Amino acid sequence: MTIKLYCFGESGNAYKAALPLELSGLDWEPVKVDFFNGETRTTEYRSTVNEMGEAPVLVDGEVRLTQSGVIQMYVAEKSGKFGGATPEEAREVMRWVFWDNHKLSSQAGMTRFLMNFLPEDKRPEAVIPFMQGRLKAAYDVLNGHLDGRDWIVGAAPTNADFSCCGYLFYPEPFGFTRADWPHIDRWLSNIEALDGWKHPYDLMPGSPADRA
Amino acid sequence: MTIKLYCFGESGNAYKAALPLELSGLDWEPVKVDFFNGETRTTEYRSTVNEMGEAPVLVDGEVRLTQSGVIQMYVAEKSGKFGGATPEEAREVMRWVFWDNHKLSSQAGMTRFLMNFLPEDKRPEAVIPFMQGRLKAAYDVLNGHLDGRDWIVGAAPTNADFSCCGYLFYPEPFGFTRADWPHIDRWLSNIEALDGWKHPYDLMPGSPADRA
Repeated sequence: MTIKLYCFGESGNAYKAALPLELSGLDWEPVKVDFFNGETRTTEYRSTVNEMGEAPVLVDGEVRLTQSGVIQMYVAEKSGKFGGATPEEAREVMRWVFWDNHKLSSQAGMTRFLMNFLPEDKRPEAVIPFMQGRLKAAYDVLNGHLDGRDWIVGAAPTNADFSCCGYLFYPEPFGFTRADWPHIDRWLSNIEALDGWKHPYDLMPGSPADRA
Repeated sequence: MTIKLYCFGESGNAYKAALPLELSGLDWEPVKVDFFNGETRTTEYRSTVNEMGEAPVLVDGEVRLTQSGVIQMYVAEKSGKFGGATPEEAREVMRWVFWDNHKLSSQAGMTRFLMNFLPEDKRPEAVIPFMQGRLKAAYDVLNGHLDGRDWIVGAAPTNADFSCCGYLFYPEPFGFTRADWPHIDRWLSNIEALDGWKHPYDLMPGSPADRA
């Protein structure tokens, strides 16, 4: 049975689930969530797809999962890939996935949304530099960790990499410039070089071009 | 060997680790992190305790873990408690722990910090109502989920409860009033009624009273 992933191209959180699904070789297909027309805020979406009102959502037969970190754990369980090679690595993978959800993707996603997808007159201007300051601290932690490493954990790509890269391939400006962070830049190139890698706008349906 | 948890009373993220440690019956002791004098920002802390510059950190012999969600998984693995009664419950627990890290504790912790622990002249005033608006959406999701439920997942307390309650027992104002959210209020009372429950300022060393 084909796994379905409710997602949309603009969502780095959805990308964090779609990328390991794609690279694992599991049979999956995207189902477009019409976020920009308010689908995730509807009573129907909240009552039938996800009470948290978020994407991504994975449906595999009777299994219905939300939160990209949980979907990543499921992909690792089902495919045997990307979860870390030892119990110690598995914990280290989870550590970075949690850190990403707490400090990196959550704040990068929000800042990118405020700067690119909200009408200018609704933008909380003072929030943006504040969030960018917090993000800079997060880039600094990640860049420092990647000094001398090809992957965040161990000798191969894991869900830690697929989580932390969630928003870092997008072209829309939100205060992240690859060239400023040489170890992050090199690591993103390692991810781009993986067999089967796709950019979020190529991997999932929906992009700003559709709404232009 | 006694498990050590680097923590401090003001940290809801540390409470999320300390509470299941305490209630599990595992042998543990707190090691106070002097956050308010900058300990987590020192090179020594980052190089020897946690490169992410955060608390809590758990040390159990050779095992060193950070991120409260990972420490909670370790407590569940080691004690057999709070991880969920079935594989389905275990995924549902993780879903709420991730949601909490992404949408609830992260933003509640930051807002409480800005409103209570920063000097007034350094407070980014415009950020506070913005974060409070996002938090209101999170309280709404949690309150709706708890309608008709005693616990977030299944019939007993789990790490989902201990994660989501992380910042909700603190007295300092940050825009959360229990009475406004009746199902959250009832559920917090269920947690308070657990045998061995302690308030964060009683469970961990350090509180605003020490610095008054």
